[in-house]
Amino acid sequence: MSKAGADEGGAGGCGDSAKQLEAKDEKGGKLLSKPSAGSSWTKVSCPCCFSERVEPLVLVKLGGKVGPETKRWLIKVIGAPQKDGGAALLAHPGEDASGDIIVVSAPRCTLLRAAEELGLCKTYRSGDMEAFSYNDRDNFKDSDNMEVFLTLAERQYIVKYELDGLRVQRDLRIPGLPESRMLQKRDNIWQKLSSAGVVVDTFPLHNRKKLKDLGEAWYSGNQLAQPLDSVNDYFGSAVAFYFSFLDFYTWSLLTPAILGLAISYFSGEVKKEMVDSVSGSKVIINDDDSGPMISGHMLQAMFSMIWSTVFMELWKRRSSSLSYRWGTMNLAERFAEPRPNFYGDLGVNPVTGRVEPLFPEWKRDLRMVLVSVPVVGLFLGLVVLGMMCFYWGEAQVKQLHKDWNSLLSQALLYIPSVLHIVYTNMLGNVYRNVAQSLTEYENHREESAFENHLTAKILVFTFFNNFAVLFHIAFFKQDVPLLRKRLASLLIVSQLVNQVTEVVIPFLVDRFISAPHRTESEDDPKEDKFRNQRTLPVFPGLFAEYIELLVQFGYLSLFSCVYPLTAVLLLINNITEIRSDAYKICNLFRKPFSPPVANMGVWQVAFEVLSFVSVISNCWLLLLSPRLQELCREGGLSSTNVLLLAVFGEHVLILIKFIMAALIPDEPDWIRKKRDQMEYTSMQALKEQKLQPEVS
Amino acid sequence: MSKAGADEGGAGGCGDSAKQLEAKDEKGGKLLSKPSAGSSWTKVSCPCCFSERVEPLVLVKLGGKVGPETKRWLIKVIGAPQKDGGAALLAHPGEDASGDIIVVSAPRCTLLRAAEELGLCKTYRSGDMEAFSYNDRDNFKDSDNMEVFLTLAERQYIVKYELDGLRVQRDLRIPGLPESRMLQKRDNIWQKLSSAGVVVDTFPLHNRKKLKDLGEAWYSGNQLAQPLDSVNDYFGSAVAFYFSFLDFYTWSLLTPAILGLAISYFSGEVKKEMVDSVSGSKVIINDDDSGPMISGHMLQAMFSMIWSTVFMELWKRRSSSLSYRWGTMNLAERFAEPRPNFYGDLGVNPVTGRVEPLFPEWKRDLRMVLVSVPVVGLFLGLVVLGMMCFYWGEAQVKQLHKDWNSLLSQALLYIPSVLHIVYTNMLGNVYRNVAQSLTEYENHREESAFENHLTAKILVFTFFNNFAVLFHIAFFKQDVPLLRKRLASLLIVSQLVNQVTEVVIPFLVDRFISAPHRTESEDDPKEDKFRNQRTLPVFPGLFAEYIELLVQFGYLSLFSCVYPLTAVLLLINNITEIRSDAYKICNLFRKPFSPPVANMGVWQVAFEVLSFVSVISNCWLLLLSPRLQELCREGGLSSTNVLLLAVFGEHVLILIKFIMAALIPDEPDWIRKKRDQMEYTSMQALKEQKLQPEVS
Repeated sequence: MSKAGADEGGAGGCGDSAKQLEAKDEKGGKLLSKPSAGSSWTKVSCPCCFSERVEPLVLVKLGGKVGPETKRWLIKVIGAPQKDGGAALLAHPGEDASGDIIVVSAPRCTLLRAAEELGLCKTYRSGDMEAFSYNDRDNFKDSDNMEVFLTLAERQYIVKYELDGLRVQRDLRIPGLPESRMLQKRDNIWQKLSSAGVVVDTFPLHNRKKLKDLGEAWYSGNQLAQPLDSVNDYFGSAVAFYFSFLDFYTWSLLTPAILGLAISYFSGEVKKEMVDSVSGSKVIINDDDSGPMISGHMLQAMFSMIWSTVFMELWKRRSSSLSYRWGTMNLAERFAEPRPNFYGDLGVNPVTGRVEPLFPEWKRDLRMVLVSVPVVGLFLGLVVLGMMCFYWGEAQVKQLHKDWNSLLSQALLYIPSVLHIVYTNMLGNVYRNVAQSLTEYENHREESAFENHLTAKILVFTFFNNFAVLFHIAFFKQDVPLLRKRLASLLIVSQLVNQVTEVVIPFLVDRFISAPHRTESEDDPKEDKFRNQRTLPVFPGLFAEYIELLVQFGYLSLFSCVYPLTAVLLLINNITEIRSDAYKICNLFRKPFSPPVANMGVWQVAFEVLSFVSVISNCWLLLLSPRLQELCREGGLSSTNVLLLAVFGEHVLILIKFIMAALIPDEPDWIRKKRDQMEYTSMQALKEQKLQPEVS
Repeated sequence: MSKAGADEGGAGGCGDSAKQLEAKDEKGGKLLSKPSAGSSWTKVSCPCCFSERVEPLVLVKLGGKVGPETKRWLIKVIGAPQKDGGAALLAHPGEDASGDIIVVSAPRCTLLRAAEELGLCKTYRSGDMEAFSYNDRDNFKDSDNMEVFLTLAERQYIVKYELDGLRVQRDLRIPGLPESRMLQKRDNIWQKLSSAGVVVDTFPLHNRKKLKDLGEAWYSGNQLAQPLDSVNDYFGSAVAFYFSFLDFYTWSLLTPAILGLAISYFSGEVKKEMVDSVSGSKVIINDDDSGPMISGHMLQAMFSMIWSTVFMELWKRRSSSLSYRWGTMNLAERFAEPRPNFYGDLGVNPVTGRVEPLFPEWKRDLRMVLVSVPVVGLFLGLVVLGMMCFYWGEAQVKQLHKDWNSLLSQALLYIPSVLHIVYTNMLGNVYRNVAQSLTEYENHREESAFENHLTAKILVFTFFNNFAVLFHIAFFKQDVPLLRKRLASLLIVSQLVNQVTEVVIPFLVDRFISAPHRTESEDDPKEDKFRNQRTLPVFPGLFAEYIELLVQFGYLSLFSCVYPLTAVLLLINNITEIRSDAYKICNLFRKPFSPPVANMGVWQVAFEVLSFVSVISNCWLLLLSPRLQELCREGGLSSTNVLLLAVFGEHVLILIKFIMAALIPDEPDWIRKKRDQMEYTSMQALKEQKLQPEVS
């Protein structure tokens, strides 16, 4: 029973040859406090999976009222082989059979089989990455040592994958639960147990030693590069992709930052505007003609349009290299089990030949078009409505204040803002729930498709919420100085606020409110340490991080031509952001499960869409720029003709962007070759294989 | 030696079991005129390919001065097995060893191996289409009968593929040719022979009986549906895709045609304009407000924007079904031999492991970006320049005529037009050669890539040439009535001219000039009949046909809102076009080789791009429409604001089109499933196969 904690002793070591499952009390000396008959790892059925050391991967927290018979049954299910409807994992009951936790680990065979099912690529003996195959496992490098072969994040995700995939083979009553909780055939066990309150939480366990090493390499020093491979190893590819993108983006900001600095320094006009925007006074158009023909604004606008395209295309190439490196380029989610919440009529999947729920594609499309799109549109309309009411209210209140000029009317001045903030927040909360239900209703088969559709919905809304005011100022009020002022304040203030709310507050809460409740000492039993991790808040996901990047990318590409220092501010922000995000994910939250992913998913699309919208916005802002208007007036062009020219220029620029995006290949040459090679060999193999039955 | 003509006797029959290669003079009675020792099919090396009947597939025409020893050597090379550097085909020397033709056919094994190499899909015993595999041939339906298993077009293309792929294994002097024509190792034989004048022509032979059947089903009756499968069978998938698209497009025209008729009938305003446009007088804006708020133009514009997207998306779905049906959905051109003109350093292809010329991708990209794009841009500039000169010249000449008003000055009036026509034609010819050289210089590995890049270059130019005037009228002169007049005359006159030049003239030339030279009688030897096919002109390819469709699709989607009857005229035109094109390809030209293709290639993209441009053009034309301007004037909107509204509307419409295009899946559900299934099985097979060496 001491194995639950054995990992800490020689973490990262090799789960080597000695084949022994029995408790070895003499080893390490760190025994669990109350040794009892029930508290040891479940036995594995296949001989190759016997290992002396079992690494605790995932903690399952049971409800307070769960009886020992239910826990015993659950441990049995977790440990049973898959053909008997079990998860073929290893379970450890914690300190004793009546405790409220189960520690789960996974034997070698289960890990390897799941790695094949998920479509992970691993290093083949030839040195190339190839889709892992269980039968061919001996030809893959390190496939005898799970702690090297699979990353910690992969191992933990596989445990979750197996637990989530548990289904009842025949109608069943769970011991210790009332009749009403009968499980029907093919019910998802984990889902039912969660809704019955038996399982309260399932989360991956931190590995203190690895975490410490990672933190040292990541955020404690002055290092310029992030240890992305270690991040992928510890937190999984979803998190690693976020930090890779953040890294790539931050470095890419160098060019616009330098340009922005140069423009602010050399262009008198721009410098003046900068000062004005901070001091708050209106810009007075400089009427002497000594300025250069092409103003800093125009240079900045042209540059940011080209930069955003090149940046996105290069990132796509980097992203595909990373996905090759991390073995996620060939994920087989389509061919794996559907996500637990997926429903449909049971049938034979025509592709894989497995029995599973089927749901026709056209039905999903129909639901998206007829339900999701209109509902999302409605909410966007509500945002606009709110904004309009706000402006209307503000005008009314101002008028009132002008008429009355009393203390009461001055207080009234704040009412529209307050109401608008309350309205926006409420709307946001309602929308989040609606988006969740809509996506659930769309009934996506794959977890990633679900995530992407949910993210897309929230993203559109959040983005709209963030930019509606700026767009309103730019396109309707057409007030460039106000836009510049707003942008400057948003950049400086909101970034500061973000950093504070994101890091400082959780840090303080953690240090002064939560931490006292989980004073750990070296002598604490492992189980208590595990249980303590539950006191940390759940990791809220990467949505907030990504949207922050998207919003600042929006400031930069959409509006930076009115405020050239944007890139500089963002660069400074991001350099600290990398560290604070890293600190946060390492220390302030529970470790998240992270499925293997091949790219940023829907975020990629969002950034690309933004880079196209930036052309429209930049052209428009240039059109508004006083210098251009002045030039046109001198050239004798009517405002309609100028507008026509701008529209023409915008279309040409969009065309150029499309052509550039098409011409820069999304994958580096060597990746494309590897991919072709994979396809070719599997084509050959298919032809060979069909021959086998005839030959033998 | 009688076999060269045996096909005609029982064409389409089964090349069944009797295994005999010797000449059977008693059969059929249609002997070649001068029986001699040399004139029989070459022998095949493998027993399964023996067949009583050999079908003549391809005719090779030799130069006049080619000696019998060269011809004998060539026949030997054609007949030699591939391991000895031959093409493993069957060759027949025609009437005797000194004649100037070689008839080529292909034995079963060669056909099957090439079918695998090309990646053709055929019906498996399960009833699904699967990528054909030579080793697994017995499990494919009809794989013992080549005339059913492969289409005639495929068999002929395979002969060409093998001939084009002939390469010298070691340095070699061709018998009968001077020393200077030495072949170096790995030289392409067919290319060298062509440039040395030994091979003058290589073309597939018509099968008179099949052609007659096809013609009857295709264009001689009043049938509404085209026999697309038979077209694919006889002419190959490239031609069949063209006719499928023409068919689909023509049927799709029904809706806009009905709408156009309705609008012309019910909208008084439009009716008036129609009359005006034909009578040539200017439109007088109708000032009574009794007309509906939404004019026929607006309805037409909105409709044509949505119609073009839906049409293209549905065509994509149809296209993918057809490609599945015709077994071309999985072509493996990337893994086959590169095209003969492809050059590069010899090396091992990392994907297939074969030795072949290699050429880095980035070099090709660089050449495209740095050379091709600027050159094409230059030529487009020259077109614009020519047009500007034309307008300038016309203005000058008109002024001159006004000043002088003499007969000479009246004659001078025609000079600019004549000069412009001459200039445009010369430019077009030069451009065609330049485009060919540029694409050759880009050095594409695959034939289809070469074709697509060449087509794209010529297409852009031709399209520009066709539409520059209309765009000029619409966007610069902003003269809607003139545009309407021009469009009407273009539609009516140019379609008529097209039909005449495309069909009537070739028909007359064929009937009265060429035909007398090739009076055939039943008693003519087969060889003379084959040779006669050479007197027909070479099929000029589908470029002209596609560009005609593209240009009329352009008229329809870009400008139809000013002339609602466009769709009606096009519908009438296309119904005759189907028949005339079918007649033309069957009777007026040599049969073309047609590689198997999976879709329309670059034409697909061209139509899609056009459908996006149509949004811009329609929005613009609506803006120019007198009714809208009137409405705005009433509503008190300034022209700048109207323009802004239009630009905003345009962006929204483009967004809607993008979303629609993204939401309608490009493949029907069942095709996607089949594809997934193929991928899944080949993935499984790959895993199994890697295991084989270890197990056995």
